[in-house]
Amino acid sequence: MTRESTTTYDWQTLVARKRKQLGAQAPAEWHLSDTFLASIPPSGRLIEDDVVRRSGMLTDIELDITEHYSATELLSKLASGAVSSIQVTTAFCKRAAIANQLTSCLTEHFFSRALERAQFLDDYLRREKRVMGPLHGLPVSIKDSFCVEGIQSTVGYVSFLEREPVSSNSALVELLLDLGAVLYVKTNVPQTMMTADSENNIFGRTLNPHNTHLTAGGSSGGEGALVAFRGSILGVGTDIAGSIRIPALCCGVYGFKPTTDRIPWSGQVADLVMEGVPGLKPSAGPLAHSMSDLKLFMSTVLNAEPWKYDATASAAPWHHDVAERDSQHALTIGLLPEDPHFPLHAPVRRALDSATEALIRKGHRVVQLPADPCRDLAYASRLALQYFIYGPHVDHISSSGEPTVASVARKSSPMFTGEFPVDMELPPFEKIDALHVAQVKYADAWRRAWVENGLDVILAPGAQSTAVTHDTYGWPPYTLIWNLLDYPACIIPYGKASKELDSEPMVVSDGVQPSYNPDAVDGAPCAVQIIAPRFQDEKCLWAAGVIDRDIR
Amino acid sequence: MTRESTTTYDWQTLVARKRKQLGAQAPAEWHLSDTFLASIPPSGRLIEDDVVRRSGMLTDIELDITEHYSATELLSKLASGAVSSIQVTTAFCKRAAIANQLTSCLTEHFFSRALERAQFLDDYLRREKRVMGPLHGLPVSIKDSFCVEGIQSTVGYVSFLEREPVSSNSALVELLLDLGAVLYVKTNVPQTMMTADSENNIFGRTLNPHNTHLTAGGSSGGEGALVAFRGSILGVGTDIAGSIRIPALCCGVYGFKPTTDRIPWSGQVADLVMEGVPGLKPSAGPLAHSMSDLKLFMSTVLNAEPWKYDATASAAPWHHDVAERDSQHALTIGLLPEDPHFPLHAPVRRALDSATEALIRKGHRVVQLPADPCRDLAYASRLALQYFIYGPHVDHISSSGEPTVASVARKSSPMFTGEFPVDMELPPFEKIDALHVAQVKYADAWRRAWVENGLDVILAPGAQSTAVTHDTYGWPPYTLIWNLLDYPACIIPYGKASKELDSEPMVVSDGVQPSYNPDAVDGAPCAVQIIAPRFQDEKCLWAAGVIDRDIR
Repeated sequence: MTRESTTTYDWQTLVARKRKQLGAQAPAEWHLSDTFLASIPPSGRLIEDDVVRRSGMLTDIELDITEHYSATELLSKLASGAVSSIQVTTAFCKRAAIANQLTSCLTEHFFSRALERAQFLDDYLRREKRVMGPLHGLPVSIKDSFCVEGIQSTVGYVSFLEREPVSSNSALVELLLDLGAVLYVKTNVPQTMMTADSENNIFGRTLNPHNTHLTAGGSSGGEGALVAFRGSILGVGTDIAGSIRIPALCCGVYGFKPTTDRIPWSGQVADLVMEGVPGLKPSAGPLAHSMSDLKLFMSTVLNAEPWKYDATASAAPWHHDVAERDSQHALTIGLLPEDPHFPLHAPVRRALDSATEALIRKGHRVVQLPADPCRDLAYASRLALQYFIYGPHVDHISSSGEPTVASVARKSSPMFTGEFPVDMELPPFEKIDALHVAQVKYADAWRRAWVENGLDVILAPGAQSTAVTHDTYGWPPYTLIWNLLDYPACIIPYGKASKELDSEPMVVSDGVQPSYNPDAVDGAPCAVQIIAPRFQDEKCLWAAGVIDRDIR
Repeated sequence: MTRESTTTYDWQTLVARKRKQLGAQAPAEWHLSDTFLASIPPSGRLIEDDVVRRSGMLTDIELDITEHYSATELLSKLASGAVSSIQVTTAFCKRAAIANQLTSCLTEHFFSRALERAQFLDDYLRREKRVMGPLHGLPVSIKDSFCVEGIQSTVGYVSFLEREPVSSNSALVELLLDLGAVLYVKTNVPQTMMTADSENNIFGRTLNPHNTHLTAGGSSGGEGALVAFRGSILGVGTDIAGSIRIPALCCGVYGFKPTTDRIPWSGQVADLVMEGVPGLKPSAGPLAHSMSDLKLFMSTVLNAEPWKYDATASAAPWHHDVAERDSQHALTIGLLPEDPHFPLHAPVRRALDSATEALIRKGHRVVQLPADPCRDLAYASRLALQYFIYGPHVDHISSSGEPTVASVARKSSPMFTGEFPVDMELPPFEKIDALHVAQVKYADAWRRAWVENGLDVILAPGAQSTAVTHDTYGWPPYTLIWNLLDYPACIIPYGKASKELDSEPMVVSDGVQPSYNPDAVDGAPCAVQIIAPRFQDEKCLWAAGVIDRDIR
């Protein structure tokens, strides 16, 4: 790869300088000793092995703060003064610093700035006898693509290291600050943000804290790892093909991809594609430890009227009565058929079967949706891929001379399942229109299925597999379909892979998708996915809450 | 213009045959006699002259039904059995038949089918002791672009006369039927649906029933004329540049353009442009006689969950608590600055001044928004025009050999005000992106104005002029801006032009826009326009209701 950059430094020098600068920003006493690092078992099960407690770096109070409360509970303690924002922020900063040293889950961290903000909020509460907003004093982590004034936003591109720190906040960042949140870290992403392995040449590879030999997922992989590590109680990712839900299901946390434009999107680092060219739209959403914290995020952000921060955000308000409706209601749940091109790994199928049985036992109606060519999963994948690649793309990699990382070089694709839906040789306008017509037709088939079956939500796997070994995740059909449809979708962690219970290996030979290896993924989190039609985010979260309760 | 059609008939023959067929569909006894037609004064003031009563064609009960109740009131009478749907439908069919003979406001009419439907609904109510739905038995008129199974949809193109009657209902038609509505007519449009003069070679020119020498507006001009004539109590139009609001303001009725995709759009007759190519999106909405009937339409359609009928419809539900909130609230109302390129005619300015004074007297806060180049009206017009023309267009005119009508041939444009915002020579993808960037930047300037001024709504003229003489309406900047922004906007009829009060003529010499001629438009309806941000349709209608009350 040729060097085309105007810089006088090679990319390795730029990266080394950035890493050194970041290293200097964290307090020296939060640095894990070589002795401690050497003591971590090679199995890499950081959560099971309770490495944070063993590090001795957090006080008992800090362990308690980070481990025993939901965001909702912490907010109530913060508002009453039972804990200070300084205490909570310190605890999560420390834990995030540890997480980063063990999993490379962060890009930027700005702990001292966060503690200043926490102090300001503590003073505000003392002085004004009221909170600044509904997120008063709570540390919130955000994906690197969001801009925070004064902090660099590289999204892992070496070429972006030469850019100045950004001069203004993303719309969502501005909104979260107005609500009283404390920002303290930005989290790691894959080079290009288009793979399920959050690796790049600046910040390295994010590891799964349940098992560092497995991927943390992507593209919001840093969020997945950090939240699973409880280095964050509430994180924000983005999702255009599964980028919130894949890290959530890989790392065993809750994740929600809302309908596009409900959470304000604008002001993030420019993407690879031209925003105005029709395509799948990404959406921002939360990763958390409970359904109630996902709802907390959605309702507080929506109550703050995102349209005031972002002209592209929808002004449709949050329907509290739907989101919080009577949970005794029996649901009609459609069960997504498994696609033979994308067969489920044994632990995934077991989780889905177990959830289905539990839901039937609790009196819900589960409808097995028949396979239907009009609603084909593989077709959706190919249509989505065509949307991803048909327009002009910007190359942010080659100018710095950095190599492409393995998961990007792999170029996973669903083309082993069939042809592109639309003739790639059509002129631009005709191609745009043909893609649109195909998308609307596909969406109409799903609309009909929904209405004809009287569905409340769909229950589906989040992926063919659990977290798998690095750079083997492949193509994400089970998440991507809901981006193509712009349907809200929620990941509920549910059980673990077990080499005893799921003992039969499965070899997948399509050259793209991962095989099932019972030993490699033993103990990896499992999950189910709950989906509702476009704009029915409230219903999706309400039903996911009912299901989360009834499958336990 | 060359003939390229495969038909063996010339276009005049096709049109004559269609007109004959339509004529034969109406009962002969609803035909106005030549004597009566000759008795109508040449001033053409059909409403003022009470031509319906003078025709003697409606019974006293039918006059009462069509003249003295809102749609809401009629529905309550229908539900209680105080009137039958046969009575109400007969009354509106008769009145629509008269309206059509005097103003050419209809395209298709299917009176006998409507009466069968009414009978079915009357029987249903008697048998089931309940209504079929919230619009039980109410006749609703719809613009010709909507498809009704078994009826032709030509939107005024002679070339479409060779098409078969359509085989399925538009999504909205299906929904209205499920709600219990009675469909009886489709209403006239301009050739191309892109002018403010509803004239085409099949159905002729729609005349303004207040003064047949003036335009009824367009493109939903048939609806405007029919509703003003009280030949419909509730009509549905569509709007991409003002096509609901222009007929409303020309004909002195209420009209509401919702945010796109709130009212289901799909299944209408194909447009001139490729739907998938980014551009301004049209929206469907009501024309009626009162604010409460606009709200009735919006709330009943939204309560029926449009997403079940149309995959492209938003599922965001109707917020009754916002739409019906306490009307004692004092509003903060931004006053749109007049654009010097588009100076207001005296009656329009007087209506706006009078409304402003009344609102201040009632305790509302009126903020005169400063002129700001970032929010420029003429710029919005040029950007919108560029969106209209940049992609491929389909020509439905030349194949039949029909001539273009005068308002289409005129090709009104805002280019006398400046240059196109985006370089027309850019390649397709780059042009699409540049247009998008310009649109988002423009929307962001309006977002800031809204937030910085704490606005509830904006008060603006609906147009530079009132209804003007045929084929002189020109370019519609005051409606189009809200399509570019996708903001909901409501027309409230308010007062009349007066050659005494607005005595000073104004000559407009830009070659596009109409001059003000006090004699020509004396007595024409005036109006104001109320606007809220995107998706705040409920707030727009609520505030418009408060304003409609407080300016009287």
